[in-house]
Amino acid sequence: MRKLKIAQLVLPWIPIPPPKFAGTEWIVTWLTEELQKKGHEVTLFSVGESKTSAKLDYVYEKSFGLQEDVMTSLKNTFKPLIHVANCFEKADNFDIIHSHAQFHALPLSAISKTPSLHTFHRTFEFEDEDETELLLRYSKLNYSSISNSQRTLDLNFVETVYNGIPLEKFSYQEKKEDYLLWVGRITPKKGPQEAIEVAKAMGKRLVLIGKKTEKDFFEKEIAPHIDGEKILYPGEINQQELSRYYEKAEAFLFPIKWNEPFGLVPVEAMACGTPVVAYKNGAVKETIKDGETGFLVEEKEGVNGLIEAVKKVKEISPEKCRRHVEKNFSVEKMVSDYESLYYKILEKQNKA
Amino acid sequence: MRKLKIAQLVLPWIPIPPPKFAGTEWIVTWLTEELQKKGHEVTLFSVGESKTSAKLDYVYEKSFGLQEDVMTSLKNTFKPLIHVANCFEKADNFDIIHSHAQFHALPLSAISKTPSLHTFHRTFEFEDEDETELLLRYSKLNYSSISNSQRTLDLNFVETVYNGIPLEKFSYQEKKEDYLLWVGRITPKKGPQEAIEVAKAMGKRLVLIGKKTEKDFFEKEIAPHIDGEKILYPGEINQQELSRYYEKAEAFLFPIKWNEPFGLVPVEAMACGTPVVAYKNGAVKETIKDGETGFLVEEKEGVNGLIEAVKKVKEISPEKCRRHVEKNFSVEKMVSDYESLYYKILEKQNKA
Repeated sequence: MRKLKIAQLVLPWIPIPPPKFAGTEWIVTWLTEELQKKGHEVTLFSVGESKTSAKLDYVYEKSFGLQEDVMTSLKNTFKPLIHVANCFEKADNFDIIHSHAQFHALPLSAISKTPSLHTFHRTFEFEDEDETELLLRYSKLNYSSISNSQRTLDLNFVETVYNGIPLEKFSYQEKKEDYLLWVGRITPKKGPQEAIEVAKAMGKRLVLIGKKTEKDFFEKEIAPHIDGEKILYPGEINQQELSRYYEKAEAFLFPIKWNEPFGLVPVEAMACGTPVVAYKNGAVKETIKDGETGFLVEEKEGVNGLIEAVKKVKEISPEKCRRHVEKNFSVEKMVSDYESLYYKILEKQNKA
Repeated sequence: MRKLKIAQLVLPWIPIPPPKFAGTEWIVTWLTEELQKKGHEVTLFSVGESKTSAKLDYVYEKSFGLQEDVMTSLKNTFKPLIHVANCFEKADNFDIIHSHAQFHALPLSAISKTPSLHTFHRTFEFEDEDETELLLRYSKLNYSSISNSQRTLDLNFVETVYNGIPLEKFSYQEKKEDYLLWVGRITPKKGPQEAIEVAKAMGKRLVLIGKKTEKDFFEKEIAPHIDGEKILYPGEINQQELSRYYEKAEAFLFPIKWNEPFGLVPVEAMACGTPVVAYKNGAVKETIKDGETGFLVEEKEGVNGLIEAVKKVKEISPEKCRRHVEKNFSVEKMVSDYESLYYKILEKQNKA
């Protein structure tokens, strides 16, 4: 296959690679680096402070940040449009544009003659009516979904390409210690309360890891349970420390109460050989093999359902968990799937 | 010359033609109708409720309105982008796109292969920094200015095309009555207070016509002077009544205190044979011939300067005023200037 000229387009909120954890930006980091290694000519449209071995193109030197107040004020400006348009103005230089930049990219892509692929690293269940309107108006563009369960809008989904993680950063261990683990942004829909209930009911230790984005919720619902003995909260930690917590956990709890379109953390846990006990919402049906790499519990079965599942986690083979991720959710797999998808779109375009 | 396929693009705030007075929408109404009459194939991108003899294309059936609150909430949505993009998605159908839709049209036009012309019916002295940023980023597109004085930003202005008015709607009369006239949106920068001062100092009657957009200002600064004897405020009136007021006025006062990029009302007054006394700000240097169709007064000369000028208005020939507008500011002249400009842009494009 001939090598391609590929544009990777992200929003200007966060640099590539991201300084802290940021799912989308890591995915794009790995995708960009690997495509470049494979011999494609990649141009990354991001901010000037981004670092990449691909060619970097940008309008704004500094990233705008992801703070709510910045985002709100940015909604009133043309800056995101200016940023995204900079890529499409140069469309003639590329065989394909892969946009991770959501909304503004859609009309620009519809006007451009260069084929494009749109990946939304988020739910399609939008809060704002005009966002749904925009998507449906441009439903015939090429979309890839990050899971089949993400496909809640009737768009032209050409393929599902699952997210991949860099397995070398997640150490595998067969021998587990006696604690449960929960990782995520500390917000009700991610189920930290349920994790606490499970641990307390079973008399087990629980480690909670993640950012307190909602101070009130954290102070009222979570903090009172943290005792440093049974319920531990080591705060925000780095990737290496996180891997340590993953690899020794008896089970990873993912009592998710919304349709998360992918969910990286259970995949990371499995990469470390740790079985996952999850509510059956969103993409877990696709990322977790029920009975093989963890257990899926209907949300209506509640905490008792989770407890019954945790009782059975010894049945799960840590090695099977690791193999499952190696086979289906590695960076290499993701990159090669996107690469195939680019060729598929170009072939379709040439036939059209 | 071959006939052209022309898109006329306006924002979806107000239908074409506008139900009330709205400068831009009337200009586009006349431009669209006349181009169509001349044998061009015109498509008007507006709202569904618009009426035109051209082809009408639209996304939204109803106009959104121009109320401040609607505009503010609309700044947060993709609706204007969706509206404008609908035109550029169909760019292949046109020889040229003439956009009166301001900001969103610029990046879309930069991506499109069809040549476009951008006319901003407003000042380029923006309040928001990102608006200036957007314009300067797309400075190389084709712009037309509605006066030379509008050119406060360094953009690729190909031509100035002055606004035109339908002369048949403005009746000419040589014989004047003993009153001064002021017409406009009642806001400080348009100088209604100065008009009142002039009238009072000279012991003359003054008719004020226009919309009270700023209630507080009107109640405090204007209303106390309205006595129904010397200072009259007939409120909002229709076009025919307005023409009656224009044609019999001794002088039209235009003590404008900002750089209004065109200013239709003094041109309408002159069309009715009425001399204009104006502060020398914005486009009046181009629309009024000092000493021939009125008098231009430096703002720093203040109300006394205006008074001295009003004393001399009998020197002005009403017929010269009318002829000046017929020659330079008719709809026919405007349409034929835009038409020539379209050919000029297309020729330049073909050579490039």
